[in-house]
This record gives sequence, structure tokens and C-alpha cells, in this order.
Amino acid sequence: MPDATILELFETPSDRPFVIEHTAEEFTSVCPITGHPDFGVVTLRYQPVAAKDGGQCIELKSLKLYYHSFRNEGSFFEAVTNTIRDDLVKAIKPEWLQIETNWKGRGGIRSVIRADHGDVPGHFLGR
Amino acid sequence: MPDATILELFETPSDRPFVIEHTAEEFTSVCPITGHPDFGVVTLRYQPVAAKDGGQCIELKSLKLYYHSFRNEGSFFEAVTNTIRDDLVKAIKPEWLQIETNWKGRGGIRSVIRADHGDVPGHFLGR
Amino acid sequence: MPDATILELFETPSDRPFVIEHTAEEFTSVCPITGHPDFGVVTLRYQPVAAKDGGQCIELKSLKLYYHSFRNEGSFFEAVTNTIRDDLVKAIKPEWLQIETNWKGRGGIRSVIRADHGDVPGHFLGR
Amino acid sequence: MPDATILELFETPSDRPFVIEHTAEEFTSVCPITGHPDFGVVTLRYQPVAAKDGGQCIELKSLKLYYHSFRNEGSFFEAVTNTIRDDLVKAIKPEWLQIETNWKGRGGIRSVIRADHGDVPGHFLGR
Amino acid sequence: MPDATILELFETPSDRPFVIEHTAEEFTSVCPITGHPDFGVVTLRYQPVAAKDGGQCIELKSLKLYYHSFRNEGSFFEAVTNTIRDDLVKAIKPEWLQIETNWKGRGGIRSVIRADHGDVPGHFLGR
Amino acid sequence: MPDATILELFETPSDRPFVIEHTAEEFTSVCPITGHPDFGVVTLRYQPVAAKDGGQCIELKSLKLYYHSFRNEGSFFEAVTNTIRDDLVKAIKPEWLQIETNWKGRGGIRSVIRADHGDVPGHFLGR
Amino acid sequence: MPDATILELFETPSDRPFVIEHTAEEFTSVCPITGHPDFGVVTLRYQPVAAKDGGQCIELKSLKLYYHSFRNEGSFFEAVTNTIRDDLVKAIKPEWLQIETNWKGRGGIRSVIRADHGDVPGHFLGR
Amino acid sequence: MPDATILELFETPSDRPFVIEHTAEEFTSVCPITGHPDFGVVTLRYQPVAAKDGGQCIELKSLKLYYHSFRNEGSFFEAVTNTIRDDLVKAIKPEWLQIETNWKGRGGIRSVIRADHGDVPGHFLGR
Amino acid sequence: MPDATILELFETPSDRPFVIEHTAEEFTSVCPITGHPDFGVVTLRYQPVAAKDGGQCIELKSLKLYYHSFRNEGSFFEAVTNTIRDDLVKAIKPEWLQIETNWKGRGGIRSVIRADHGDVPGHFLGR
Amino acid sequence: MPDATILELFETPSDRPFVIEHTAEEFTSVCPITGHPDFGVVTLRYQPVAAKDGGQCIELKSLKLYYHSFRNEGSFFEAVTNTIRDDLVKAIKPEWLQIETNWKGRGGIRSVIRADHGDVPGHFLGR
Repeated sequence: MPDATILELFETPSDRPFVIEHTAEEFTSVCPITGHPDFGVVTLRYQPVAAKDGGQCIELKSLKLYYHSFRNEGSFFEAVTNTIRDDLVKAIKPEWLQIETNWKGRGGIRSVIRADHGDVPGHFLGR
Repeated sequence: MPDATILELFETPSDRPFVIEHTAEEFTSVCPITGHPDFGVVTLRYQPVAAKDGGQCIELKSLKLYYHSFRNEGSFFEAVTNTIRDDLVKAIKPEWLQIETNWKGRGGIRSVIRADHGDVPGHFLGR
Repeated sequence: MPDATILELFETPSDRPFVIEHTAEEFTSVCPITGHPDFGVVTLRYQPVAAKDGGQCIELKSLKLYYHSFRNEGSFFEAVTNTIRDDLVKAIKPEWLQIETNWKGRGGIRSVIRADHGDVPGHFLGR
Repeated sequence: MPDATILELFETPSDRPFVIEHTAEEFTSVCPITGHPDFGVVTLRYQPVAAKDGGQCIELKSLKLYYHSFRNEGSFFEAVTNTIRDDLVKAIKPEWLQIETNWKGRGGIRSVIRADHGDVPGHFLGR
Repeated sequence: MPDATILELFETPSDRPFVIEHTAEEFTSVCPITGHPDFGVVTLRYQPVAAKDGGQCIELKSLKLYYHSFRNEGSFFEAVTNTIRDDLVKAIKPEWLQIETNWKGRGGIRSVIRADHGDVPGHFLGR
Repeated sequence: MPDATILELFETPSDRPFVIEHTAEEFTSVCPITGHPDFGVVTLRYQPVAAKDGGQCIELKSLKLYYHSFRNEGSFFEAVTNTIRDDLVKAIKPEWLQIETNWKGRGGIRSVIRADHGDVPGHFLGR
Repeated sequence: MPDATILELFETPSDRPFVIEHTAEEFTSVCPITGHPDFGVVTLRYQPVAAKDGGQCIELKSLKLYYHSFRNEGSFFEAVTNTIRDDLVKAIKPEWLQIETNWKGRGGIRSVIRADHGDVPGHFLGR
Repeated sequence: MPDATILELFETPSDRPFVIEHTAEEFTSVCPITGHPDFGVVTLRYQPVAAKDGGQCIELKSLKLYYHSFRNEGSFFEAVTNTIRDDLVKAIKPEWLQIETNWKGRGGIRSVIRADHGDVPGHFLGR
Repeated sequence: MPDATILELFETPSDRPFVIEHTAEEFTSVCPITGHPDFGVVTLRYQPVAAKDGGQCIELKSLKLYYHSFRNEGSFFEAVTNTIRDDLVKAIKPEWLQIETNWKGRGGIRSVIRADHGDVPGHFLGR
Repeated sequence: MPDATILELFETPSDRPFVIEHTAEEFTSVCPITGHPDFGVVTLRYQPVAAKDGGQCIELKSLKLYYHSFRNEGSFFEAVTNTIRDDLVKAIKPEWLQIETNWKGRGGIRSVIRADHGDVPGHFLGR
């Protein structure tokens, strides 16, 4: 099951604001109704707090392992997206953060779910 | 004929606002004039009401079956789009909702129809 | 020569505002200087007036025939685009309307011409 | 060397504002340092002044020949772009005008230079 | 290790504002933890100060050599991006400047980091 | 249900051998087990017998209507493909003929079925 | 109507065998039944006879004008293809020659017709 | 672990030879060394024995479930491919059969493994 | 004008046969009739003679300069291709050699010319 | 410098013949003349000897490290390709083996080098 304790952080390298985006191409969880696997792409975008204020960045390998912990989890698309957003906000404590999940077709329907935290810049809200 | 009673819902997993987009790649109905089949892609975007206020999400399999119910329906592109918008608004009671239909060429002309409900964010109004 | 009397209309299916886009992939006219054929793509975007106010939509087959009537017409790209805009505005009497023509290369140069009518939403003005 | 006297114009076909974009796929000049050829794509966007105010459009074949006149010219990307912008503004006297040059890789680096004149609409300023 | 003294400049060709974008497709550095190579694409965007005020442009070959100097440098994505931004701002002294780095997958995750300086126009902040 | 009597023919225009390929992008039938719609692309390739020997070609509109007659037919992919091959061989009496059906994903699996008649040239047997 | 007298030739530049392929992206003729325009791509492949034996190549501009002469011709795809093959064989007298026509969708069906002359190499017979 | 007893079959619909290809886009297993997930695409191609000789086809849903049974299996790419080939040959008893697996990058390296059974036609052996 | 004396060679690194392919994306010459520039892509494929027999490879920078020497040369596509084939065969003295030129559209027609020398393997003769 | 002692092997999982292809997207070495970095894609294809005869497969991580050992090696494209072929043949002792290297543009020219060992099947020799 999802395990946020895996997440590791490192000190952000700058006092100036900048934006980080990590896109995991190979996310998989399980449909809670049919038990069949779901496959998706998860994009994380965030701005760390400044270094002088203790800002931190997520370490990539730990992020990968955190995503792997969903592998046998049965959960709706909507719940997976909200869980990841909440776990990462708690770990990184960023200025703002956005999670976007893109799911391959189940029954011929592709889905995209997007959950934000804080003041996400307007240019990340569009299509 | 279109049957909105098929639609099923489940409780939204969060009190925080987030956006859901489902794209059905294989929608088909029938031209009311010639009786020939039309083929299109239907995109639904919406924001559910918060969980604490009774917000609900559309269940994917029921959405697929609802779309299938248009298979032998004779209707103009413009009418199909407005019907889907009205049926889904009535079922989901969302904060806002948008339907975009993309139709493959009839006589060398491709068509896109877009119908909105409520306060759709500006970044979903573009191309 | 261009014949706007071919255009047919039908009553819009809704009182609520929605947007219609028809893209004709195979438009052809003739260069007024060399007599050589030009090939382009013509996109029409518009919002019909509400049904209760007598709003109308363009019928697709008549639109196709109208475009065919340019086949042996000698006209600059800029003039073709303005003519189509003016003819369709007169026929549909829409809330707003936009014509965009994309022309394949003449002498290694591709061209796009765009003519608007009324209050075209800002998100249709971009690239 | 660049020869702006080649440029020819014709009267704009309308009093209403519209936008024209010409993209030349095969532009070539010469690196002023190494003497090696550079290859790029040049996009011109502008809005002619209204017909009633004497507005004019650039004639396509003359634009092509003007671009050809850079073929053996040694010039930095930045200078080529500014020269084209200045020459075309002087010839067309448009409401506004934009030149964007896209250069294929020199040493593994692709370059884009953009020079504007007048009040270029915001939707043409982005990527 | 990164060597900003390599950077050369030339006088900007115009007093009027314009925008320059250089995209290096083949950037490589080394992961500071595993010692494995990282591969990415680095995009520089900036507006030089006007010629009359002593504005300068970056010379392309020197930019390429500067990027090569990261080849055996062990650094996090986030630090590489901030270093390049700081070095180039110091050399060019531009009106504004933006660095965007796109990194190929490490463990199935693609990353994009973006660092700005000065008043970067809003249309370069989006996706 | 599939109706081969719809098929119409016209006299082939030449005594010399040539090859004809028609690709229908929008074929739909129904899964015989679940009743859900299937969507596919059907490609017909054949060589008509020479005109002097009474060779005939399939008329395109009748081919389209024949394909439409499968719309509410419940049939496995394998059976649909064999039925079309057999019906068209009977109607056209060609030198040789090939049917290839490409089916969009059912449960994440895309399928291609190919059925031949007569001496199909080797270069049409590959991927 | 199609006019093969337009075709011009020039002496082939070599005694050694080589292969020439010209692809016209913008061919248009008219459906003989409905009178609606058809749009296609025409590919000519051939090997000229050796220069010492009087071999000739087709001049490109005359080929373009020959194709233009089909613009208002009512003809089936199959007949157009055979006519072009026959006219060009008569003009060029090549070692071998191949015509392939690709037609955009009529009623959702794309078509490819291929007609050969002489000993076309096997590697040009495939898909 | 892989479970071939899930596989179901149905009687082939024809006595004539034809070819079936099923491509599963979303296959996942586990690296036996690191325990990290691997993601790949599995293509099955085969020709069933004739119906009169008891030929059978694989049922799609059972094939999907069989592939799902590898989800938590730790196995090298090479072993997974050989296991699938052996299991499907035993179940279908086809004229010939081919398995091709395409694996997404592990450490920047993409892999393709291909295992055949019986007399696979030459045109399926290429790239 | 074309200058084959620029071409430089280096000793092939192996006694074993291997194949080399160099594709120049940015070739330009001039139409001998109109004086307008032509743009194309030139592909060279060859197998050097074994090292022990004095086999040589073409040096890349000299190849680039040789291609540049066509920049202001007026020549038909067919002649350019045969000239390059003859010059390179004379310089490299390879086991076999192939030149393929792909020309961007002149009057809406794209062209490919291919000239071979020696026993070019069959798999390089196709499309 | 290239270090073939890094290569590790594991026992092939089958007595039956099968084909393995590994494509490394991010290979880099150094130009021996200019000292500038080269970037390429390296594809390895081979068939292991049967398990009963002691056949072995290359372990992926060791292959990656072997490729990394070229990072600061100055070598022509042709020599790199022959070196990799020779090293891998010596390590794997395969039935047959093929190395194909694709190099990004140096001076606007892309290159592909291919070196084979043993009886490489004909379908891997093509383009």
C-alpha cells in the first residue's frame, strides 16, 4: 500500500524561486471494482521554498519507490490523485504543488485528473 | 436512444477542489438526414462539489454505457453535444462541466462542438 | 464563382451558448496572377444566437458545396478569406464568427490568414 | 546582399482588420565567422492598415525573392532577424508586424529569434 | 568543471527589444549519487539590453563550449539549472533571462526544471 | 446483419494488371459475448481480372454501405474478417484479394487479423 | 481534360541506370457520379533509358501542368491512374514506370491505386 | 505467478488459412535482480489450424488475464518471452506462432526479444 | 561549382565488411532554368574496401565542404545526383556506393533520385 | 577508455533459438580531431547459442556500464562501431550479432554505421 515514509528530501540549491517537474511514465495501480491493473502517467510540479527558509526538493529515487508502492493498491483514479497530492505536500512543504494523472483507456475512455495545492501559477492550469 | 438513467456515481474522495477529464475515443451516432453513421471523440471535463457538501464523481463504466446508448440515435452534432451536457449536469451536479465533441470528416469537413455549464475556468476555453 | 445562395441553415438546438468549429481540409481556388491552383484548409468557428432568439446553425453539406464554388475562382488568399467571412456572417448572423485559412506552400512559403467578426473570445485569437 | 527594393505590394481587400502569416521554410544565409551556410525558417505575421486608409499587403513572390537575396549574405542570426523586421515594416507600414526566425542546429544548438514592431497581440508573443 | 570564463559576447545589433532562444539538444552531466551520466536538453531564453545602452548577445560557439564543461561534473538537476542561470545572467546582463532543462528518464521519471531572472514575459512561463 | 447483396461493381478500365486498395477507417461491429461495440479499420486489397476477360471493380459507395451492415452484428474479430473476405471474393471474382482488419484495444489489447484469397503478392504479406 | 501534349522532356544526364520519383501532393479531379471534387497524391517512379540510347527525363513544370489538366475531369480513381500511366509511358519511353495514386477519404474510405509498366523492381511493389 | 490454465479457446471460424495478431500494450513484470517493475508491450502472432482439423483461436479476455498473472513475477526479459511462447504454443497448437516483447528503458536501454515456433513466414521476421 | 578535390579520406578501421551511411539534411543548389534555389537531403551509403586491401573512409568535414560547393551551381536534380555519385566513387573506391537525393517541393511536387554503383545490397534498393 | 572486462553474462533460458535486441539511446564519445562530444544511439542484436550448448546472454546493467566507458574516448564513428562489435562477439560468443550506431548531426550530417558478425538474418540488413 502507498507508503509516504519512503520519501526523501535534499536541501534546495538556491534562494531564488524556480520550478521543478517530474513525470513518471509508468505508474500502475489496480481497479478497486474489477481488480484489473490500471496504467497511467503521473506528473508532479512544484516550487520549493527558498534555501534560506529551509526549502527542500524531493529526491528522485525515493519518489520512484513511493510510486511503486501503489502497484497492488486498489483505488479509483480520483482517490490516487488526491492521495499523492496530500502525501507530497506534507513531505515537501512547497510554495505550491500540482499533481496531474493521465490514465490509459479503460473501456475506450482515457482520463486525466488534476489536483492542486497553494497558489499554482495560471500557466499550469490550462491544457 | 440516449439513456441517462444508466449513469452511476460515487462519492468524491476529497473536500479540496480538483478537475476530472474523461475522453471517449470511440463515440458513434447516426446522421438524421442520410442515416449514415457518424464517428467522434467525446471529452467530458468537470469539477465535483466538495465531499463534505455531498459532491459526486461519475463512474467510468456507466459513462461508457451511456455513450453506447447513442449508437443508433439519429441526431445532429450540435444536438448530441447539448444533450450530453444537459444529461451529465443533471446527474453529477458539478461545480462546472464542459463537453467537447470532435467529429471525423463528413464530406471532407471535420467538426468540433463545445458546450459549457457553470463557471468553466478560462484555460479550458481555448483551442 | 463563389455562390453564397447555396448556404442552408437549421434551427440551433439550445438556448444556451455553445461553440461550433468546422474544418474543411480540401479547399482549392486559383491564383489570380499565374492561374495555378492553390490548396488550403478553411476553418470556420462561430457561436449561434440562442434558439429562443431565432439562432441558426449552418448545414454541413451546403457549407461543403459553398466551398466547392471557389474551385475555379481566381483570387488572392487575403480576398478569399475576407469573402468567406462576409458571406457566412450574412447567412448565419452569429454572435461571433472567425475564418482561418491555411495555404500550402507557393514558392516554399506557407500562409495563414485569419478574419474575425464580432467579439471572438480571446482564446481563439492565438496560434 | 539583402535587397528590399524587390518587395512589391497590393491593396488590402478589406476595411476590416485581419491577420496574415507567411512562413518561409527554406531560408539560408552564411555565418559571418566561419563562412558556413546557415538554414532556417522565417515567419512573418502582420495586420495591414484598413483599405480605406491605404493599407497594403506584401505580394508573395516578391517576398520570396527578397528572402533569396540573403543567400550569400554573412550575418549573425540576430542581425538577419532585425534587418528583415526593419525592411518589411518600412515596405508594408502595417498596424503591427512580427518576425520569428528558427535556425537549424549549429554545433547541436537550435536557435529562435523574435523581433516585433508595434502593438503585436499578446497571443502571438508566446511559444 | 563548469567554466563560465569561456563565454564570449558580441554587441547586440539593435536598439529595439527582441528575444533570443538557444536550445542545446545534447547536454550531459553526471549524477552526484550514482556517478551515472545524465542526458538533457537546455533551453536559454533572454532579451538583450538595447545596443545604445551597451547590450550584448552570447556567442553561440562559446555557449556550446560552456555547456561541454559540465560533461564530467557531478550535480543534481536542480543545481545544474541554477548554476547555468547564474553564470549566464552574470555574463550577458540581460533585461531578463530564463533557463529550462529537460532531463531524460532516470528510473522511468522525466524531469523539467525552470529558473528565471528578471521580468520574464508571462507567455514564457507556461508549458 | 451483413448484406452482400448491396455490393455494386463497374467494369475495370484496363486490360493491364493493376492493384486497388480501399481502407475504411470507421468500421464497427458488436462483441458477441459482452454486447459492447468494437471499432476497427478494414483494408481491402485486390487485383481485378483484365477488362477483356470481364474484370470488375467494386463501387466505393456500395462497399461503404456493405460495411455499415455489420454495425449491429455480434461477431468475433476472426469471423468478421473471414466473412468479408468470402463475400468480396464472391462479388468481385478478382485475380487475388486480401482483407486486413485492425481492431482498437479491448482490455488493452490491439488486434490485427488478415485473410487472403488467391496468389497475393509477397510484398503484401509483411507487417 | 487531360492533355498529354503538355509534357516536355530533357536528355537524361547519364549512361548509368538510376531511379527518379516525383510525388505530386495536390492532385484533384472530379467524381464522375456525384460531380464532387476528389483530392489525391500522385507518385511517379521510373528509370530512364541510358543517354547513349536516347533516354529522356520528364521536365517537372510540364508534369505539373499535365496534372493540372485533370482538374475538371470526371473520372473514377481506377481510370485516372491507368490514364496517367499510359500517357507517361508514351512520352518518356522509360525502362520501367510506376504510378501510385493515394486518394483522401470519400465516405470514410481512403484508396490507393497502383499501375505498373515494364519490369518494376520488386522493392517498389510493397506497401 | 504465470498461470497458463487461465487460457481459453474457441473454434476457428474457417478452414482457410489466416493470420491473427494481438498486441498487449500494458504488460508488467518485475526485475529479478532489483525487484523494480518492468513495463513492456507483448505481441502474439499465429495461424490457427483449419477448422476441419480442430483448429482453435485464443479468447482475448483469457489472454489478458494470463498476461496479468506475470504482474508480480520476477523474471528476466529473455525468460518471460520464452515462457509465454511455450505456454501459448501448448494451448493453441497453432500452425506457427511468434512472440515479440518490447521493453521500456532500464538504465537508458530499450530491449526487444523475439521467440518463434514452427514455420513463421519470412515477412514477420524483419524489423 | 562542385569541387571534388576537397574530399579527404582516412584508413578504414577494420578488415571486416561494414556499412556507412551519411545523411546531409541541408543541401542546396540552384535550378538551371529559373535560377531559384533548390533544397534537398543527400544520403550517401557505402561499404569501404577492407583495411588490408587499402580501403578508405570519407572524412565527414570534407564531405560537408564538398556538398557546400554545389551552393551556387545551376543543375537539374538528376544531374546533381549523378555528379555526386561519380565524384564519390572516384574518391572512395568503395565495394559499392549509393546516393539518394530527396528534394523539397518545386510547384507542389517532391522528388527522390537514386543512383547506385557496384553491387548495392538488395535491402537498400526499396522504398 | 572502453573496458570490455565490465561485461557480465547469464545462462540463456532456452534451447530454442530466439533473438535479443538492446537499444541504448544515450551513447556518447569524443571526436578524435576536435575533442567535441559525439552523441549517438547504439543497437545490439544477437541470437544466443542454445542453453544445452552453454549459450549465454549479456546482462543489461553491465552492458550499460560498458557503453559508459566510451564517455571520454576519442574515436571515429567507424572505429567505435567496430570496437563494440568485436568486444561483444568475444564476450557473448553468439550465433550471430549486429551493431548499428546512429549518430546525431555533426555539421548538419547524420550518420549510421553497421557492423555484423556471423550469419545475420537477411531481414536485419535493410533500412
